[in-house]
Amino acid sequence: MRATTLHGIRDIRVSEVPDPTIDKPVEAIVKVTAGCICGSDLWPYRQDADPKGHTIGHEAVGVIEEVGADVRNFSPGDFVIIPFCHCDNTCPHCLAGVNSACDNLGFTLSGQGELTKVFQADGSLVKTDGMPDAAMIPSLLALSDVMPTGWHAATCARVGPGHTVVVVGDGAVGLCGVLAASRMGAERVIVMSRHEARQRIARDFGATDVVAERDDEGVARIIELTDGVGADAVLECVGTNQAMQTAIRVARPGATVGFVGVPQEGMEIAPRSLFARNVGLFGGIAPVRTYLPDLLGMVLDGSIDPGKVFDLTVPLDEVAEGYRAMDERRATKVLVQP
Amino acid sequence: MRATTLHGIRDIRVSEVPDPTIDKPVEAIVKVTAGCICGSDLWPYRQDADPKGHTIGHEAVGVIEEVGADVRNFSPGDFVIIPFCHCDNTCPHCLAGVNSACDNLGFTLSGQGELTKVFQADGSLVKTDGMPDAAMIPSLLALSDVMPTGWHAATCARVGPGHTVVVVGDGAVGLCGVLAASRMGAERVIVMSRHEARQRIARDFGATDVVAERDDEGVARIIELTDGVGADAVLECVGTNQAMQTAIRVARPGATVGFVGVPQEGMEIAPRSLFARNVGLFGGIAPVRTYLPDLLGMVLDGSIDPGKVFDLTVPLDEVAEGYRAMDERRATKVLVQP
Repeated sequence: MRATTLHGIRDIRVSEVPDPTIDKPVEAIVKVTAGCICGSDLWPYRQDADPKGHTIGHEAVGVIEEVGADVRNFSPGDFVIIPFCHCDNTCPHCLAGVNSACDNLGFTLSGQGELTKVFQADGSLVKTDGMPDAAMIPSLLALSDVMPTGWHAATCARVGPGHTVVVVGDGAVGLCGVLAASRMGAERVIVMSRHEARQRIARDFGATDVVAERDDEGVARIIELTDGVGADAVLECVGTNQAMQTAIRVARPGATVGFVGVPQEGMEIAPRSLFARNVGLFGGIAPVRTYLPDLLGMVLDGSIDPGKVFDLTVPLDEVAEGYRAMDERRATKVLVQP
Repeated sequence: MRATTLHGIRDIRVSEVPDPTIDKPVEAIVKVTAGCICGSDLWPYRQDADPKGHTIGHEAVGVIEEVGADVRNFSPGDFVIIPFCHCDNTCPHCLAGVNSACDNLGFTLSGQGELTKVFQADGSLVKTDGMPDAAMIPSLLALSDVMPTGWHAATCARVGPGHTVVVVGDGAVGLCGVLAASRMGAERVIVMSRHEARQRIARDFGATDVVAERDDEGVARIIELTDGVGADAVLECVGTNQAMQTAIRVARPGATVGFVGVPQEGMEIAPRSLFARNVGLFGGIAPVRTYLPDLLGMVLDGSIDPGKVFDLTVPLDEVAEGYRAMDERRATKVLVQP
């Protein structure tokens, strides 16, 4: 099959690689209808580049091509959303809703390719009734990672009705965090952004205020906007030390910072900074499968439209241009069509 | 008045100091019935000793001696519990239940003395109906700090019915954390302790298991006791890096570490260690006033008896012996009678 591969820093290619195969009876192979580029794909692209030419891309939706002998709930022809983290949905962690810590955790490895493998089909996949309209594909694709991740940030931050929420980060995850907070009943959603196109999406998703300032100035602006109190809930959707410190500082005493940006290597925080004001910290890899049924319902009934985060679509052949557009912040999130 | 004062490392004295006075109309002066020594008093005692001879002691109960002109709800003669952190109970943080971040925060400064001042009487104090029995005094005194602090740890860790809870720390706060977790319906409460007298109090308070091992061995033991899953909630009641790392490691994915041990100077944690397993961190100075009415009800109806943490009582004259007993771990917590 043809798939996106990474060969070195900023060296993205489309290569012929072996088709994935069913090696265990719980697996499935999906023909990818749409994949996309994640902000976290930019890290190996920019710096930790893998010279071995491995496939890349962990977000995808598509049609089941083949299932293993033990797969009960899916058949070839089903249109499915693939949570980027695959889970058995039967282990103690899955039963507690934390399927991103599944005892049989797996990940989508070739979401920017023609075919991809699901390591735990029954536990992971969610299907639609029949083949969805083409117009629905972006929002369904967003359910494989970016929207549930934004939802996880808001859940971890314990956003509730009437809250004033701050979202640190205007990438696709931050924007989905705005959408989640708004959907959870936040009265005021303040997004930190200095990027006009993203501010527009944020407003579309329910942001009521935009703060363009950063660091001390950004913190001061938010404290001012909240009458000196701070935010009831804060979503940290970047993963840098700068973003985390800002998030902690704008939280009101008793509030929790929900963090879903993978913390950058070496980031450390002083528990004293949390202790002094009773600010909580809670986050991690989103348990996508836990949120997926509810979020799918919201997409299907039109109450959320997370597909708006895709502002560029490229055919698989031009995936390298997609990476460049995200790297240079010309695109918020890029959909890839095999 | 006579009060406990600290003059240098391990130099505790009883000195004649000026009586506290009403300087603002919202204040009150309380004649101390009983005070006590807190684990956190041992820090300046052991190392950061204050050579100026300041008074020490932030936990006390007693009888109101005098109130300022604006105090509406209390009169001389009332028996009151004094939350160690005083609050107005009207600012936005108090209204949100976080009165340890009150805009008008104050602290008890001479709880191991004959008289002590309350900086916000109406917002802070809770009184009993009449003078309580002498036998009730230790449990009422425990409500000024140690019991609400243990309760805060369990609240922050989101202990719930049926949970398996680990308590790191067998000091008086940890023991009160055991009592809180048990009272909140935990099915299993595992306390980490290698001190026999404290293990007995812990069992009395509802601990079902004792783990004497520490660090890697202690973590392995708890993972084994929880069938490889980890604890549903963890209370960190020490404040050292060792205790915090243990607490994070024994938490199951999705669980929260409620921490109330003041984090030692320089402690840093890597958010990656939390992120990888979706372990939350939430804690700080206990909002004593928020919990006080409910906890007082439980003490009065006999359903909790936190006064059991006091295993030594000394008259004020012998307060230095009380410090030595706690310093040398001969006593868990020492009650001081002026």
